[in-house]
Amino acid sequence: MESLNRLIGPDVGALLKERRYDQLRSAMTELEPADVADLIGSLEEEESAVTFRLLPRDLAADVFSYFDAEQQEILISRIGTERLAVLINEMDPDDRIALFEELPAEVASRLSALLTPAERSITQAILNYPEESIGRLMTPDYVRVRRSQTIAEAMAHIRRYGRDAETVNVIYVVDDDGRLIDDLKIRQFLLADPEQTVESIMDENFVALRATDDREEAVRQIERYDRVALPVLDSRGILVGIVTADDVADVAEEEVTEDIQKMSGMEALDAPYLDSAFASMVRKRAGWLCVLFLGQMLTATAMGYFEGEIEKAVVLALFLPLIISSGGNAGSQATSLVIRAMAVGEVELRHWWTVLRRELATGLSLGLLLGIIGLLRVVVWPHSERLYGEHYVPLGLTLAASTLGVVTFGTFAGSMLPFVLKKLGLDPAAASAPFVATLVDVTGVVIYFSTAAVLLRGSIL
Amino acid sequence: MESLNRLIGPDVGALLKERRYDQLRSAMTELEPADVADLIGSLEEEESAVTFRLLPRDLAADVFSYFDAEQQEILISRIGTERLAVLINEMDPDDRIALFEELPAEVASRLSALLTPAERSITQAILNYPEESIGRLMTPDYVRVRRSQTIAEAMAHIRRYGRDAETVNVIYVVDDDGRLIDDLKIRQFLLADPEQTVESIMDENFVALRATDDREEAVRQIERYDRVALPVLDSRGILVGIVTADDVADVAEEEVTEDIQKMSGMEALDAPYLDSAFASMVRKRAGWLCVLFLGQMLTATAMGYFEGEIEKAVVLALFLPLIISSGGNAGSQATSLVIRAMAVGEVELRHWWTVLRRELATGLSLGLLLGIIGLLRVVVWPHSERLYGEHYVPLGLTLAASTLGVVTFGTFAGSMLPFVLKKLGLDPAAASAPFVATLVDVTGVVIYFSTAAVLLRGSIL
Repeated sequence: MESLNRLIGPDVGALLKERRYDQLRSAMTELEPADVADLIGSLEEEESAVTFRLLPRDLAADVFSYFDAEQQEILISRIGTERLAVLINEMDPDDRIALFEELPAEVASRLSALLTPAERSITQAILNYPEESIGRLMTPDYVRVRRSQTIAEAMAHIRRYGRDAETVNVIYVVDDDGRLIDDLKIRQFLLADPEQTVESIMDENFVALRATDDREEAVRQIERYDRVALPVLDSRGILVGIVTADDVADVAEEEVTEDIQKMSGMEALDAPYLDSAFASMVRKRAGWLCVLFLGQMLTATAMGYFEGEIEKAVVLALFLPLIISSGGNAGSQATSLVIRAMAVGEVELRHWWTVLRRELATGLSLGLLLGIIGLLRVVVWPHSERLYGEHYVPLGLTLAASTLGVVTFGTFAGSMLPFVLKKLGLDPAAASAPFVATLVDVTGVVIYFSTAAVLLRGSIL
Repeated sequence: MESLNRLIGPDVGALLKERRYDQLRSAMTELEPADVADLIGSLEEEESAVTFRLLPRDLAADVFSYFDAEQQEILISRIGTERLAVLINEMDPDDRIALFEELPAEVASRLSALLTPAERSITQAILNYPEESIGRLMTPDYVRVRRSQTIAEAMAHIRRYGRDAETVNVIYVVDDDGRLIDDLKIRQFLLADPEQTVESIMDENFVALRATDDREEAVRQIERYDRVALPVLDSRGILVGIVTADDVADVAEEEVTEDIQKMSGMEALDAPYLDSAFASMVRKRAGWLCVLFLGQMLTATAMGYFEGEIEKAVVLALFLPLIISSGGNAGSQATSLVIRAMAVGEVELRHWWTVLRRELATGLSLGLLLGIIGLLRVVVWPHSERLYGEHYVPLGLTLAASTLGVVTFGTFAGSMLPFVLKKLGLDPAAASAPFVATLVDVTGVVIYFSTAAVLLRGSIL
C-alpha cells in the first residue's frame, strides 16, 4: 500500500491538471481510506476539494473521518449542501459525533439539519450522553439476534444486517425487551448446526460497559478482556451500542497525552499541539507556571534567613543550584515512575508502603552516590584550597551530606505525592515533575544551609 | 462480570477449605479468564496452585497468559511436569513467546523441551526473529484460503480451521507459494453466493506488515488503518502470521511507559515498577542523575565568575533559585509537549520552524507574565527597602528582565532539543525535563548575573 501510495502521489497533480478525473477516481478507490485522506490532505485547498468530490459516496465518508478538524472544516465549506448531506448521512455515527464535537456549534447545528430523521435521532441519542462518557464513543452499528431464533435464521439476519455493522466478529443476543443476555462469536455460529437454536450455544456469560461511565472505563475494560469490541448498556441493561477497539485506542492515546502534559506541569491542551489556539495554549501553560513561580519565591524567603551565612561564606551560594536541582531530578524520576505505574494499574493505593520503603532505599543509594561525587569534586579537584578556601574538606562534607539529604527527600516526596493526591480523589498526574522540583527546592535550601550551619560552625561560619 | 467476580471472590477460600472442588471449578468456568486470573492471583501461593490445577486445560492456558511474570514462575514451579506440558502446548503461540522472553533462560529451555515437535517449530520460527520485531509479536493462528476455491469450499475451510484462529473477522487469500494476495472480511464471505470463487470477491488491495520491522511499526499501522489485525509477511511476501490489535495495545502501552520514563530523566525500566529488581532500578536511575549532577556542576563554575558580584550584593543570591527554576519549568513544558506531539505523529521534523516561532512567542509571553509578577514581588512587597536595600527598584527590574530572558531561553531550548535529537537519529524523549532544566540552569546563571551586571552597575554593584 505504502508503495502504491508513493507511486500515485506525485501523479495526482498531473491527473488533476489534465482533468483525467475517471482515472483519478479509480486510482483512489484502490487505496486504503487512510491513504486517500493523506493524499488529499497534501493537496492545495482548491484541488483537495475537487479531488474529494470525485470519491464514491461510501469511500468519501470513510476518508472524511480520517481528516483532522481543520481539514474537515475546509471541506465542509467547499462542497455543496447536497453532497454534504449525502456525506454526513453516510458517515458512521461514532465518527459523526466526533466531528460534531470538534466543529463550532453553529456549523454542527447546520449539519445536523441535513441529517435524515433516522440518522438525526441516532445522533441525538448519542449526544444526550455526557461528554467524555462511553455513550459518546459508541456506534449503534452492530448485529443482534434473539435467543429463540435458529442458527440458520440468525445467520440470515447477520447476512442482511451485517453489511453496515462495524464488526460481525461478535453477535449480541438480546431478550424481548432488548436487554443483552449474551455475546457470541461469529465462529460459534459458523461451527453450529443450522437447526439448533441460538439459545443452545449460549453461556450467558458476557462483559459489558455502561453508557454513562467515563470513557476511560472503556479503555480499561477493552484492555483487560482483550476484546475487539464491547457492548454498551443503558441503566436498564438494554443494549444501546458497541464500542470498538480502534475508537478506544484513540481515546487511550488522548488520555496519555493529557497525562504527559499534566506531568510536565501544565493543563492538558485538549487539542493537537499544532491545532491549539495560541491564546489557549499560553493560558494552559501560564497557570501552573505562575503557581510554581509563587512557590519558588519561598526559596528566596528561606534563603533570607541564611543571609548572614551567605555573607560570611559566599562559596556556599556557589553550590546551591547543584544541590537543590539534584533533589528535583531525583524527585522527577520518582513521581513519573509512580504516576505512570498508577495509570497502567500496576501500583494502587494499597502499595504505598511497599513503594515508600523501595523509594527510601533508592533515594539513599542515589543520594550517597551523588554525595560521593560531590565530595570528590570539592576535595580532589585541582587547586581546591585556592578555590574554596582552607576549610575545603568540611565544605565538601557539607556538600555530600546535604546532597544525600536532598536527594532522599526528593525521592520520598516525588513518590508519595501521587499517593496523597489519589487518596484525596485528585489526579495523581498533578504531582508533576516541576511541582515536585519546586517543593524540593524550598526544602533543599533549608536542608543545605542547616547542614552547613552544623558542619561548618567554627570553620567557615 | 465484575459483580459476579465480587460475589464469588470471598467464597473461594471456603470452597477450597471444604474441598468442594467441583463447585469451585464450575464457578470459575463461568468467569472471564482475566477475572479468574485476578481471583487466583489474590490467593496464597499454595492455594493458588491448587485452584489453578482445577481449571479445564483450554481455560488454564488462557488464564495463565493473564498472570504477571512472577506468578507465572511460581505456578511453573508448583504444577507437575505433565500438566505443565499440556499447559504450554495449549497456550497461544504469541502468549507463549511472551512467557519465554520473560522467564530465566534455563526455565525457558526446560519448558521448550516439553513442547510437541509441531509447537516447538512454531515457537522456534518466531524466536528466530529479532527481539522487539513484529515477528516476535505475531501468531500463526489465522485462516487462509486460496483464490481458486469457491466461497462454499472456503467457508468449509473456515469452519474447520477457524476454531483455533485468533480472529475470523479477516480471512487471508494466498497464492500457491503462500504469498499473500488479498485480505477479505468474513462478512464478504457471508454475503457472497456460495458458488462464486474467492477470486471473484477479491480486490487485491491489502495492508501488510514485515516480520523483521520494529514492533512500533505494528502500533503505527494498526492505528493508522484502524484494523483488528494485520497480516505479517516475510521478505518474499509469504504470509507468516498475523498481529492482533490487543497485542499491539500492550506494546503501545509499554512504549508509552518507556517514553515517560525517559522523559523524566532515566533509562526505561523494561519491567513493571513493582517487578523491577532493586539493583537494576537504581542503576537505570543513577546513570542520568550522575550526568545531570556533573552538568549542574557547571552552575557552580559559572557562579564562580560572579563571586565578586555576590559578595557585593548577597541579595542577588536570594533570587537565583527562583529565576533559574522558572526557566526549567517553562522548558519542561515545551520539551514534553514537543516530544509527545512527535510520538503521536502530530509534529514532524519539517515543522521545526512553525514550532520555533510558536514557542518563542509563547516563551516571551510567559516570561513577561512571570517577570511582572517578580517585579511586583520586589517593588510592592511590604518593607522592600528594609529587605532588599535602597536600590530595590533596579533590583526588581533585574529580576523581571532576567526572568523574561531565562523563560524565553528555556522554552526555546526545550522545544528545539527534541528536533535536534531526532535530526541526529536519536530518541527525542532523551530531551527530558531534567536535562532541559539543567541546561537552562547553567545558562540561567549567566543570563541573571550578566543582566545584574548591566542594570545594577553603579547602584548595588
